[in-house]
Amino acid sequence: MTAMECPINQMRLWDDVMALGAMTDSDKPYTRRSFSPRFLEGRAWLARRFEAAGLTVRIDAAGNLIGRREGEMPDAGTIMVGSHSDTVPAGGRFDGIAGVIAALEIARSFSDRGIRLRHALEVVDFLAEEPSEFGLSCIGSRGMTGALDSKSLSLTDPAGERLDDAIDRVGGHVASLAGARRDDVRCFFELHIEQGKVLEAGRIDVGLVTGIVGIMRIEIAFLGSADHAGTTPMTMRRDALTAAAELVVAVRDEARALASSGNGYFVATTGVLNVHPNAANVVPARTSMIIEARAESAVLLGQFKARIETLSAGIANRCNVERSHCTLLSSTQPVACSPMLRALLQEAADANGLSSIDIASGAGHDAAFMSRIAPAAMVFVPCLDGRSHTPEEWAEPEALAAGTAVMCDAVLRFDQTRNENGE
Amino acid sequence: MTAMECPINQMRLWDDVMALGAMTDSDKPYTRRSFSPRFLEGRAWLARRFEAAGLTVRIDAAGNLIGRREGEMPDAGTIMVGSHSDTVPAGGRFDGIAGVIAALEIARSFSDRGIRLRHALEVVDFLAEEPSEFGLSCIGSRGMTGALDSKSLSLTDPAGERLDDAIDRVGGHVASLAGARRDDVRCFFELHIEQGKVLEAGRIDVGLVTGIVGIMRIEIAFLGSADHAGTTPMTMRRDALTAAAELVVAVRDEARALASSGNGYFVATTGVLNVHPNAANVVPARTSMIIEARAESAVLLGQFKARIETLSAGIANRCNVERSHCTLLSSTQPVACSPMLRALLQEAADANGLSSIDIASGAGHDAAFMSRIAPAAMVFVPCLDGRSHTPEEWAEPEALAAGTAVMCDAVLRFDQTRNENGE
Repeated sequence: MTAMECPINQMRLWDDVMALGAMTDSDKPYTRRSFSPRFLEGRAWLARRFEAAGLTVRIDAAGNLIGRREGEMPDAGTIMVGSHSDTVPAGGRFDGIAGVIAALEIARSFSDRGIRLRHALEVVDFLAEEPSEFGLSCIGSRGMTGALDSKSLSLTDPAGERLDDAIDRVGGHVASLAGARRDDVRCFFELHIEQGKVLEAGRIDVGLVTGIVGIMRIEIAFLGSADHAGTTPMTMRRDALTAAAELVVAVRDEARALASSGNGYFVATTGVLNVHPNAANVVPARTSMIIEARAESAVLLGQFKARIETLSAGIANRCNVERSHCTLLSSTQPVACSPMLRALLQEAADANGLSSIDIASGAGHDAAFMSRIAPAAMVFVPCLDGRSHTPEEWAEPEALAAGTAVMCDAVLRFDQTRNENGE
Repeated sequence: MTAMECPINQMRLWDDVMALGAMTDSDKPYTRRSFSPRFLEGRAWLARRFEAAGLTVRIDAAGNLIGRREGEMPDAGTIMVGSHSDTVPAGGRFDGIAGVIAALEIARSFSDRGIRLRHALEVVDFLAEEPSEFGLSCIGSRGMTGALDSKSLSLTDPAGERLDDAIDRVGGHVASLAGARRDDVRCFFELHIEQGKVLEAGRIDVGLVTGIVGIMRIEIAFLGSADHAGTTPMTMRRDALTAAAELVVAVRDEARALASSGNGYFVATTGVLNVHPNAANVVPARTSMIIEARAESAVLLGQFKARIETLSAGIANRCNVERSHCTLLSSTQPVACSPMLRALLQEAADANGLSSIDIASGAGHDAAFMSRIAPAAMVFVPCLDGRSHTPEEWAEPEALAAGTAVMCDAVLRFDQTRNENGE
C-alpha cells in the first residue's frame, strides 16, 4: 500500500495526535489527567476537531465525548470507533490518544471520499480510561455499558469531590445515567499501541486482538523467625525469603507451562516482594509478595490460582514457615473479541497488503466493557521497545496510518456486509 | 553440682548482671552505648565493684577497664578473663555484660576461697565491642592486640568527634597506644550467651567454643528490563526477580551442602533483597541482594565465594538478565579457639557434672582479636529462644553460674598445669 492508495491522511492523523499530546501539564509531560482543567482543554480542542470533520458533537450522560455522523438507514444502528484522551501521570502521547484520533480520521476519510455509510458512525472519547483519582478506571465505558454502580459513583478523589459530581462537572448528567446505556451499537472498534514488543520484534504491521486478558492478583505472605544469621544453623532456620524465592521460581515455571499449553495467552509475574527485616545478619522473618496472572482463558486463571495455593502451602511446609496470608486481591474476567469483527479486520489487513498476527491484549481497555453491549474488536500498532505510560512512548506515523487504514476498511466491510444481509 | 558445691555465688553474680543491665537510657532499654555518659556511669560502677573485690583498677591506653589481682610468680604472666559492657541500641542485659561480671565473680571466688594463683589474673571490660557510632567494633580488643590503625583512629562519629579523642575522653591514652599491646597474656577466656538456640534446644549446660567464624558478605545485583507485566510474553522477559530468586534458593542449597560436609560450622543467608520498581504490573527490572556466609574454615568460605560467582553468572545468563554487580563487601578470617584451653574447659565441665558440646561461634567477639596475642577460648551459656540484641534477651541465673563455674575451674587448671610444667 502506497501513500497514494491509502484512504488515510497520514500527516493529518499524525499532526492531530501530536497536537493533542502537546496539551500537557508543562511541569510533567505528558500529563492530561481525567477531570483536570488540562483534560477539559484537550476535550474542547477535540470537540472543535470533531465539528470541523462535520460530526455532531455531544457529551453523553456518562461524560463521554461523542462525534456522530448519521447513516443512510436510520434504523441500522451505530458503528462506534474510539478510545480515550486521558493519560496516566507523566505518560505518553499515544496510549488512548492514537485511538481517538484514528477514529476521527476514519470519519474524515469517509467524508473526503464521499462515502455514506448505512450505519451511523460515532467517534468516541471515553471518559477516564486510566486509573483516575477516584481509584476507578474505564469510567466512561462502564457508564455506557451499565457497569457504573452507585457505590462507584460515590467514590471521592483526594480533594473530596464525589465521582458523580465530577462526571456532571465535565459535562455528563449522572441523574440520567441510565440513558447513557446504549442498545443501538452494532459494533465497536478500538485502535491502540501494543504496549508490548511482539509486533516490533516480528516487524508486523498490525496486531488483530483475539481477546482482552482477565487479570488476577494474589497476595501471599510467609512468616518465619528473625533469627541471628550467624548463630542459627541451616537446619534450625525458618527463613521466609527462601520460601518466597521458591514460590517466585514456581510462579515463573508454572506460567511458562500454561503459556505453552495451547490455551491462549498466559503470563504471570511476581512484581512485588518485600522482605523483613531485610538486614544482612538476620534470617528473613517475613515476606509478602503480589503475584499477578493474566490470561485469555478464565479456566487457565482458575487452574493457576489453584496451583499457586497448593504450591505455596507445600513450600511453606517444606521451608518450615507459615503461609500467613493467601488472598485474592482482585480478579477480572477475560473478554474475547468478536470473531466476526476479527475476520473483517483480517480481510482488511490482507486487502491492504499489511502483515498481521493474532495477538492477545495483556492490558485492559474500554473495548472490554464495550463487548458487553456489542461485538468489539481491537487493532494494535507497534510501539517503540514496547514502552508505554512513559514520556518515551512512541509509535511511527506510518504505523498509526496502517492500523487506521485497516480499521477504516473493516468499518466499511462491516457496513456493507450487514447491509447485504438485510440487517 | 549443687549450689553448696559450686564455688560461684550465683546470687551475687546475678545481682551484679541485673545492676549493670539496669543502667540504661530510660527511654530505650537496654541501651548503654560505648562512649556515652550512660556507658561511663556503668564503668564507674564496675570500677567500684572491681575495687570491692580487691582488684587494682586501671584503664589502659586503648580504653579498656581492667581489674588486676597479682599472682604468686611475678614472671608467670597474666590470665585474662572478660568481655564488654557496651550494648547495641535497645539491646539486652546479657550480651557482653554476663562475661564481664562472670570474670569478676571468678576473681571474687578465688578470694573467697583464699586461692592464690601463680599467674596474675585480670578482669577486663573491653571498650566498644558492639558496632560503635564510629562504624567500628571491638575497639578495645583491637587496641590491646595492635589492630587499631591510624585510619581507624581518625574515624568520626555523627557528632564529628574523632575516635582517638573519644578513647582519650573515656580514660584511654592514644598517644601511648603501643603500650596497650600486651605480651604478658598467657591465655584469655570469655563467657557469652550463645545468641542461638542450639544449647537451649539440646538442654545443654555449656557450649565449648571451637572457633569464631569468619564472615563474608557479597553484594549481587541483577539488571533486567521493566516491561509491562501484562503485555510481555514469558519468552520475552528479562525478569531480575526470578534471577534473584533462583540465587536465593541456590545459596541455601549450597550452604546446606557445605554445612553437612564435615568441615566445621557453615551458614549462609540472603538477608537483604530489594526489588525495583516493586510494582504488581511491572516485570522487576532490578534486584540487589546481600549474601552473608559464616564459617570456621577459610577454605569453605573461599569455596562458597567461587561457587556463588559461578552460580550467579549462570543464572544471569539463563534468565537473560545482566549480573551488574558482584562485589565482596567485607571478609574476616575465621579464628580457631585454643585446643589446649578447650581441653581444660572440657575437663572442667566434666568434673563439675555439667553437660557440654563443642559449638562454633557464629558471631564475632573480642576473643577473636585476643587470639592474636594469646591462646583464647570461650564458654557459651544457653539463652532464651536464641534471642540477643533485643530487650527480650534472657539467660537463667543457674545457666550463668554454671558457665562461670566451668570457666573458673578452667582458669585454675590452666594456672596449675602451667606451673607443673615449669612455665
